Amino acid sequence: MGPHPAVAAIRLAVRRVLHDVLIDLSAQRTPEPHEARTERAPGHALVLVACSGGADSMALASALAFEAPKLGIRAGGITVDHGLQPGSDLRAAEVVARLTALGLDPVDSVVVSVGRDGGPEAAAREARYAALDAAAERHGAAAILLGHTRDDQAETVLLGLARGSGIRSLSGMAAVSGGLGAARRYRRPFLHLDRQTARKACMVQSLPVWDDPHNTDPAYTRSRLRHEGLPALEKALGKGVVEALARTAQLSRDDADALDAWAAEAEASVRDASGLLECAKLYALPPAVRRRILRRAAIAAGAPAGSLFARHIEEVDRLITGWRGQGAINLPGRVVAQRQGGRLVIRQG
Amino acid sequence: MGPHPAVAAIRLAVRRVLHDVLIDLSAQRTPEPHEARTERAPGHALVLVACSGGADSMALASALAFEAPKLGIRAGGITVDHGLQPGSDLRAAEVVARLTALGLDPVDSVVVSVGRDGGPEAAAREARYAALDAAAERHGAAAILLGHTRDDQAETVLLGLARGSGIRSLSGMAAVSGGLGAARRYRRPFLHLDRQTARKACMVQSLPVWDDPHNTDPAYTRSRLRHEGLPALEKALGKGVVEALARTAQLSRDDADALDAWAAEAEASVRDASGLLECAKLYALPPAVRRRILRRAAIAAGAPAGSLFARHIEEVDRLITGWRGQGAINLPGRVVAQRQGGRLVIRQG
Repeated sequence: MGPHPAVAAIRLAVRRVLHDVLIDLSAQRTPEPHEARTERAPGHALVLVACSGGADSMALASALAFEAPKLGIRAGGITVDHGLQPGSDLRAAEVVARLTALGLDPVDSVVVSVGRDGGPEAAAREARYAALDAAAERHGAAAILLGHTRDDQAETVLLGLARGSGIRSLSGMAAVSGGLGAARRYRRPFLHLDRQTARKACMVQSLPVWDDPHNTDPAYTRSRLRHEGLPALEKALGKGVVEALARTAQLSRDDADALDAWAAEAEASVRDASGLLECAKLYALPPAVRRRILRRAAIAAGAPAGSLFARHIEEVDRLITGWRGQGAINLPGRVVAQRQGGRLVIRQG
Repeated sequence: MGPHPAVAAIRLAVRRVLHDVLIDLSAQRTPEPHEARTERAPGHALVLVACSGGADSMALASALAFEAPKLGIRAGGITVDHGLQPGSDLRAAEVVARLTALGLDPVDSVVVSVGRDGGPEAAAREARYAALDAAAERHGAAAILLGHTRDDQAETVLLGLARGSGIRSLSGMAAVSGGLGAARRYRRPFLHLDRQTARKACMVQSLPVWDDPHNTDPAYTRSRLRHEGLPALEKALGKGVVEALARTAQLSRDDADALDAWAAEAEASVRDASGLLECAKLYALPPAVRRRILRRAAIAAGAPAGSLFARHIEEVDRLITGWRGQGAINLPGRVVAQRQGGRLVIRQG
């Protein structure tokens, strides 16, 4: 008799990702002439799981512990103590004990101090990834697995939708993304699994899980979305909403990548000999490509990407498409855009 | 003292659109050599408003009645009786009386019979647009104005999101769209105005409005979305959600247009001398462009666009990106896709 379907599902998801990690590793090393190219990593690569003790990341840890040895990979774990709740240090110690009991080694607990920039969720995320990056470097880990599920992805898409800033913000989290010092450090094996599967896998494996009170605290946008917004949307639109949102993320990501590539390529062709943007050539491009070039130019001139909204770019775009002698346009970061003799000049003022 | 702000807002929106209609008309006629190009349409162009008697389209009718004469445009109205509710004929007669009272001429009421294809909302929509197209032809109208507001747009984006079929379905309704026999027949002046403004404009002008019971009937997806889904989403994400969704629609539309154009252009370059798609050349394209080419090819081979989902295209795509000798793939409309000697063959089986 095989494992419970939920356990089989989480293991398969992790197995696939570990295979990818091995392929990446073997691509990185240059094989000796006499040596066959192999998927087996040299000297037992280490893969870490980032674990909060919640159901998603505990399920992920259990699957990593089961699958890694079969591929000659060492499995380790790391838990981050954000210090935001009383007793969070005890919580972290408990997660360490549970990961160790699963057979993970090394297991690390890291205390971070969370700032306030960009709101509590963004600040906690930033501190967490900095700690994970540092842990990966310290242990020489080939990858860090993150427990985000399809439900998290759906929530992320809705959060992006609320910004109204275009398809890049609809593209959610990537299955593979880079960290400081490594292009493909983070992997999200559960991005196509639902939260219920992870929870079920913990239950049938008798793994105790911790329910973070932040996840149900209506002070947090994501929590309100999870417990009120998404259920109401499912009630109105039907049960497939989470899956549809996750698929939208993938499609939007591919679309945004293609358009970014187009804009990067087109940008060179719309600059004159002195490097200034020519309005007539910009005018001839599709709006989607033109606006991306304008955004790139504003950022290159010093405008902070996070403060540069669609309405800013639209205003600059009107210097091209709706020219009637309007004056200079002020952008975030003291960047100024103006039209001068058929050229668009964007620079810090 | 000027008009109430809500009335000023609806009039400005209509005035802008009427200007666009005149520009389109003057571009269509070839001016005589001695004749100055003018925005004034020849022989008093007619613009119709499609009016259900609800607040949005009554506000639109009132603004059209006010603005059209000032631009030398004749203003008419049409109401569609879907015959779905008892007394709908009396309702239609009442709308005709109200439009006539506003000074519109001609005013038409058209009875349609609603089929069942694609669900009640889609069937009603199809019957309605067929009747509006016919009315435009019959009266020789230059344009038909539709009362869709920013709130309708937000709902349409969410309905598209629930399909999970990519950014084209997130692009909502166009400000200008074509009808049978005319490329730019339909105009939506209120796409950037909120429903509340239209309602307020009716109130301060003492225009009686009709609240369609369908709009509050939870049997309709759009009604559930309007009264439960969107409010819950606003509660979770903040009041800017409707605006963010409407902006997402515009950005997605531009992005989808650009990628469609790219795919159309790239398609020619990936076909061999006999017109077959070359797998190696497809492989080199960005996934977003490649999948659009595959979708175009499947539709060209006879697959009905409405039944062709993202998962179908993904499966065909794996013949290119994950080739391991898999067999033919069945698509809707008895279309079959298979890989043969480095070529992708898509045809009706």
